[in-house]
Amino acid sequence: MIGMSDGLTVPFALAAGLSGAVQTTGVIVTAGLAEIVAGSIAMGLGGYLAAKSDAEHYFSERTREETEVSEKPDIEADEVAHVFQSYGLPAEEVSTVVAALRQRPQAWVDFMMRFELGLEKPNPKRALISATTIAGAYIAGGFVPLGPYIVLSAVHRALITSVMTTLIALSAFGYVKGRFTGAPPLRSAAQTVLVGGLAAAAAFLIARTIS
Amino acid sequence: MIGMSDGLTVPFALAAGLSGAVQTTGVIVTAGLAEIVAGSIAMGLGGYLAAKSDAEHYFSERTREETEVSEKPDIEADEVAHVFQSYGLPAEEVSTVVAALRQRPQAWVDFMMRFELGLEKPNPKRALISATTIAGAYIAGGFVPLGPYIVLSAVHRALITSVMTTLIALSAFGYVKGRFTGAPPLRSAAQTVLVGGLAAAAAFLIARTIS
Repeated sequence: MIGMSDGLTVPFALAAGLSGAVQTTGVIVTAGLAEIVAGSIAMGLGGYLAAKSDAEHYFSERTREETEVSEKPDIEADEVAHVFQSYGLPAEEVSTVVAALRQRPQAWVDFMMRFELGLEKPNPKRALISATTIAGAYIAGGFVPLGPYIVLSAVHRALITSVMTTLIALSAFGYVKGRFTGAPPLRSAAQTVLVGGLAAAAAFLIARTIS
Repeated sequence: MIGMSDGLTVPFALAAGLSGAVQTTGVIVTAGLAEIVAGSIAMGLGGYLAAKSDAEHYFSERTREETEVSEKPDIEADEVAHVFQSYGLPAEEVSTVVAALRQRPQAWVDFMMRFELGLEKPNPKRALISATTIAGAYIAGGFVPLGPYIVLSAVHRALITSVMTTLIALSAFGYVKGRFTGAPPLRSAAQTVLVGGLAAAAAFLIARTIS
């Protein structure tokens, strides 16, 4: 999702910006492809490494929590009671839960990870799939705005075609994203169009001003 | 954090890529500034709107949960028991907690949001601050690789200066990020340099190949 939206937006804005400053599509295609490659690596590989770091953080915290549960069970039991107290439950009413967790050290550690630290168990395979999906979506998204500059030789015509196809793609993507995330689809479509349109307009203005 | 890393990486790779394809720094500066503007808007405004959607999702789920707690308390009580059963606690041992939550509807809703749905209460002010920080960091990061192309007129010298300053900035940023997130700082530095270096090398190769 993230990859597609940024892949549509940033290469679109870059190409539109350069359209205000150069006379041939060659430079725009070169810059656009360089941006797509760079953006997909930054988002895909960068996201993958960040997910791996998060996973390591989870497992080092889990090891620490396991040590505490086995070596300082009374302090940890107080922390469980404290979690429930934050929901307005007096310590004595949760004593059966605390006692039951003390019997099950692994479940107790699971409980502390989720409810005290708010950490979800990471899925190492999902990090790789998600990174590949983000990079692929960025590349696929990037070819929508760049396509017209590859096919057409006149910058002005390529710009108009790119603006039209990309705004349609952004609104379709925003609409579908809204359906999936539960947000009102038409407003979601308006938002992705707004971000893409603003980015392209700002890039066009700055490129025209300085060149 | 995210903004700075991508702001260093993508404009760096784009400028390096174009260095393999064009003879003057003018086009590189124009493309780089267009990319910085587009990327900061896509990440900042896009992130802000995404955070606002998340907040709305939270509050609509909360309203649904409040309705269920007041209208179908028995089903919700079973769900509380189910949360605890997933930690190996038999239903009868958590009956006091369930009974206590039934006395406190607001705490009960808080409990379901966090423990059944895994949703954290969003901070609407933080979304704006975080979006502004990301956009600002992207712009600040982007001027590190682009600076040499603005100051120097020869593409080759600007490229070498940009590569050196950006790799130093990426490793310093990765090191500091590691210190803050608890990851080994030297490995964190190596990773940010790897992502930036790979993105720049790939952009350079593709730009040189097609031009």
